[in-house]
Amino acid sequence: MIEQSVAQVMTPSVRTVAPETTACAVARLFAEHDIGSAVVVDPETKELLGIVTESGIMKQVAAGADIGTVQVKTFLSQPLISVPSTEEIHRAAALMKEHSIQRLPVIDDGELTGMLTTSDLTDYIPRLRNTIRRNQHQAAKGSP
Amino acid sequence: MIEQSVAQVMTPSVRTVAPETTACAVARLFAEHDIGSAVVVDPETKELLGIVTESGIMKQVAAGADIGTVQVKTFLSQPLISVPSTEEIHRAAALMKEHSIQRLPVIDDGELTGMLTTSDLTDYIPRLRNTIRRNQHQAAKGSP
Repeated sequence: MIEQSVAQVMTPSVRTVAPETTACAVARLFAEHDIGSAVVVDPETKELLGIVTESGIMKQVAAGADIGTVQVKTFLSQPLISVPSTEEIHRAAALMKEHSIQRLPVIDDGELTGMLTTSDLTDYIPRLRNTIRRNQHQAAKGSP
Repeated sequence: MIEQSVAQVMTPSVRTVAPETTACAVARLFAEHDIGSAVVVDPETKELLGIVTESGIMKQVAAGADIGTVQVKTFLSQPLISVPSTEEIHRAAALMKEHSIQRLPVIDDGELTGMLTTSDLTDYIPRLRNTIRRNQHQAAKGSP
């Protein structure tokens, strides 16, 4: 029960943007959909180029960049660290800690299938705890 | 072992800013310290007024606000949702889910003592899983 996979907790929709999108346009996309990241995709080759996050845009604001013109290709995060949807949740969590990241694109057979965020994992903690309590309760009763 | 408290996983340092701080200055603070939020405190009364986050600044960027002059008091998140450091982790996680937030200031006896983020909780998952595995192993061996 504790060895659940990323597929069970990830957000199954992911926004993608072209590398020429401006920081301001990405900020509007984030605000509109209440998200904190998007995967940067080459519109022609469909290659996954990297990820653009709130923190990335924040650093542009901090550096005094012109938010209305600076394009995501100049500040996207690379390489794209990702997991397959079959990955165990605790391994994905360890990967995020290792790289100090808050979002993991989920890629299956080269196809972007979801996004795993620290919020998804936080939502998972009460469920995990309930499962453990139930198991403890069953073990105490002597059921299999 | 699974009923651990917020004190064991929170980040014990919290940045505070005055309500007159500009969005740009906060963005610089975030970039400099690699953080995503700060608590807004009245410098005279020491009252905790709210929280300013990356998402809050992102929404200002999206709305085309002048980042160099707009002050955090105009867009901080209120009311300040917080937990004491003695709160159980799964309850804090449930509270974050309930309010769709990623940061929880930790307040003990009116004093700001830390910040709990979804990243702190993500870091906790592999530890939680190891504890469970160890308990299962001990149970299988028949130790107490």
